[in-house]
Amino acid sequence: MPEQIFTFGTIASKVCIQEEIPLIETLLEDTRQVLIVCDENTRYIAERAAGGWNPPRCVLKSGEERKNWASVETILRAAMDAGLGRDGAFVGVGGGVVGDATAFAASVYMRGARLALMPTTLLAMVDAAVGGKTGFDLFGVKNLVGTFYPASLVVMPVDALKTLPPKEFKSGMAELVKTAILDENDDFLIKIEGKGMDLVALIVRSIEIKGRIVEEDPRETGKKRALLNLGHTFGHALEAAVGLGTLTHGEAVAWGVSRACALGQRLGLTPSARAERITALLRNLGYETGASHPLLRDKALFMRSLLHDKKKRTGRPSFVVPTERGAALASVDNLGSIEDLIDAAP
Amino acid sequence: MPEQIFTFGTIASKVCIQEEIPLIETLLEDTRQVLIVCDENTRYIAERAAGGWNPPRCVLKSGEERKNWASVETILRAAMDAGLGRDGAFVGVGGGVVGDATAFAASVYMRGARLALMPTTLLAMVDAAVGGKTGFDLFGVKNLVGTFYPASLVVMPVDALKTLPPKEFKSGMAELVKTAILDENDDFLIKIEGKGMDLVALIVRSIEIKGRIVEEDPRETGKKRALLNLGHTFGHALEAAVGLGTLTHGEAVAWGVSRACALGQRLGLTPSARAERITALLRNLGYETGASHPLLRDKALFMRSLLHDKKKRTGRPSFVVPTERGAALASVDNLGSIEDLIDAAP
Repeated sequence: MPEQIFTFGTIASKVCIQEEIPLIETLLEDTRQVLIVCDENTRYIAERAAGGWNPPRCVLKSGEERKNWASVETILRAAMDAGLGRDGAFVGVGGGVVGDATAFAASVYMRGARLALMPTTLLAMVDAAVGGKTGFDLFGVKNLVGTFYPASLVVMPVDALKTLPPKEFKSGMAELVKTAILDENDDFLIKIEGKGMDLVALIVRSIEIKGRIVEEDPRETGKKRALLNLGHTFGHALEAAVGLGTLTHGEAVAWGVSRACALGQRLGLTPSARAERITALLRNLGYETGASHPLLRDKALFMRSLLHDKKKRTGRPSFVVPTERGAALASVDNLGSIEDLIDAAP
Repeated sequence: MPEQIFTFGTIASKVCIQEEIPLIETLLEDTRQVLIVCDENTRYIAERAAGGWNPPRCVLKSGEERKNWASVETILRAAMDAGLGRDGAFVGVGGGVVGDATAFAASVYMRGARLALMPTTLLAMVDAAVGGKTGFDLFGVKNLVGTFYPASLVVMPVDALKTLPPKEFKSGMAELVKTAILDENDDFLIKIEGKGMDLVALIVRSIEIKGRIVEEDPRETGKKRALLNLGHTFGHALEAAVGLGTLTHGEAVAWGVSRACALGQRLGLTPSARAERITALLRNLGYETGASHPLLRDKALFMRSLLHDKKKRTGRPSFVVPTERGAALASVDNLGSIEDLIDAAP
C-alpha cells in the first residue's frame, strides 16, 4: 500500500494508507510509554488496533463541541497518570476532533512528546491528519488555540471508512474537491467527476498535493499554504452565521468554494467554464452552491463574521479563488463590493 | 548598552540590556495590534513602558500559583477582545510567571503570534526570558504544559531591579552562579565571588553563556541544553517535598547545586577544591548547602519526587555535576546509592 514521506520544517512525517486497521504495537519503535486517545465512536477501532496488547487509553466524549480545553486537559491528565515522559507517544485514533486535540496535547506535553495519528474519517484523512495543524476552539472561535506540530507517523486504515455514516463521508468529499482544484494537473478533478473512482487513489493523490503545498510553507507564513483555505473564508463565515455545528465542515467548505468561484469570475480570475464545472461537481455531490444558502437567515451576521475572519491578518483582505489551473490569492479592498455574492434565504 | 542576537532553531532572538524602562512603542515594528501583559506587581512598570500610549493591557494576579491555565486563558481572552490577529504582538512585562504564561499564550494564539518580553526580576532576566521555554503548571507538576517559543525581542531594564525585594534578588543569584559554573572560562565565577561586581556585566555574561548553549540544542533533544539543569533535579525534588511555593526557585537550585557537587565528588567528576569553592560561594550568598535542608522533613517523599523527575526521560537516570571546568552529565544507575547525599532535618 502507498506510503509517502513529507518534510514539514524540520520534522519528517510518514503517511501510510492501508486496507486494514493495523496493530499499534507494530507501528511504534518504542512501545514502553504509549497513550491511545479515541472517542466513543472510534473506541472499537482503537480496541482493534490495540489487539491483545493493553496500553493506557483515554476515551473522549464524541462531538464537534468537544474540541475544547476540557478534552485537552483530559488527555494531558491521562498521559500523566500513565506515566508518559517526554519520550512517550500519543496515538490519536478518530476524526478531526480527536486528532486535533490529541496532536495539540502531544505538542505541549512536557514541551512536546511523540505523536502518531490514525484518522478514521475521510475528512480527517484528507484534511486534519496531514500538515501539522493542531488546535481547539475557545470563546466560540474555531481553532483560536493551536500549534504547528506534524505527526511523525500517520496511518490511514481505509477499512475504517466502511462504517462511516454517509453524511461524514460526504463531508470529506468537499475537501477532496477543494484539493483537486488546487492541482495544476487536471486529471485529479476528472477522476472525482468520473463514476468509477477508486477511493484509495483519490486519498493518496489528495494527501500528496496537500503535503507538497505544506512542505513549501509549513507554518503558513508565506502565501502558498493559504491556498488550502480555498472555500474556507466564506465557509467559516457561513458556519458562524448559522451557528457552529449546524453544518458539517464539508457542507460549509463546498458552499464556500462555489462562492469563491463566483468571486473569481467577478474578478476575471476564474474562467466561466471552470467555475461552472466546479459548481456542477459540487451540486452532483449533493452540496448547496447557490448565493442564498437555505440555512443562512442573517446576512449582516455573515458579513460581520467574514470581516472578523479577514482581520486575523493585517493588510488587505484576500480570498483564494480558482484559476484556469489551480488557484490564487486575490485581494478585495472593499468587502461591501462582494455582498451580492451572498444572499440570505427568503 | 549591550545587545546580543541568538538563533534558536529558525528563530532570531534579540536580547537588549539597558538602564531605563523603555517605551514599548519604540520597540515594536508594528504597533497596530499589541497586548501588554503584566501582574499587579509589575503594573507600574508596564504603565511606565506604555507611556502616553494606551494599548490594551491584561493584568494578572501575582504569585507563583498563578502559573496555570486560568492565567493563560485570561491572556488569550484579552488578546481576542483586543482584536489581535496572527500578526499581533504579546508583550510580557514581569517575572517568570508573567513571562512563561505570556510566551505560552503567544505560542498557541492562532497557532503562534509575535512575542516580546520585558523581564523585571533578576531570575527572569538570567533564566526564563532567554531560550524559549514557555509553560505553566498543571496537576501539581511544574511546567507539565509548555512549548519552545523564543521571544523575537527581549528587553531587560536594569532599573526595574532597583525595587526588587532582596529575596527575589537572591533567588536570581543562584541561577547566575549555576550559569557561571557551566562556563569553561573561570573568570565569571571569580567575578561573582568578587565584592565589586558589576551587575549589568554579570547579566550580560550569563545570558551569553546560556544563549550559546541553547543555540546548540534549542529543544533539548541533545545533551547540551540539559547542562542548564545543573542543580535542578535535586532542587525540583526539594521543592516538591517541602511543598511548591515554600522555597524560591533560587533557594531550591542553590541547594541542588551543592548536592550536585557532593554527587560529583562521589563519582570522581568534581574535584574537591571546586566543590568546596562552589559550596562556599553559595553559602556566602546566604543559601543552604548541607545534606539536610532545614525545611526537608520527609526524605521518602524527596526520593519519590527525584525518581518521578528522572522518569521523564526513558533510559538511565542522569544528573548534571560540576567538573574541573564546566559541567557534565553523569549516569546514576541506582538512585538508592545516592540517598546519603540527602538528609531530612532532625
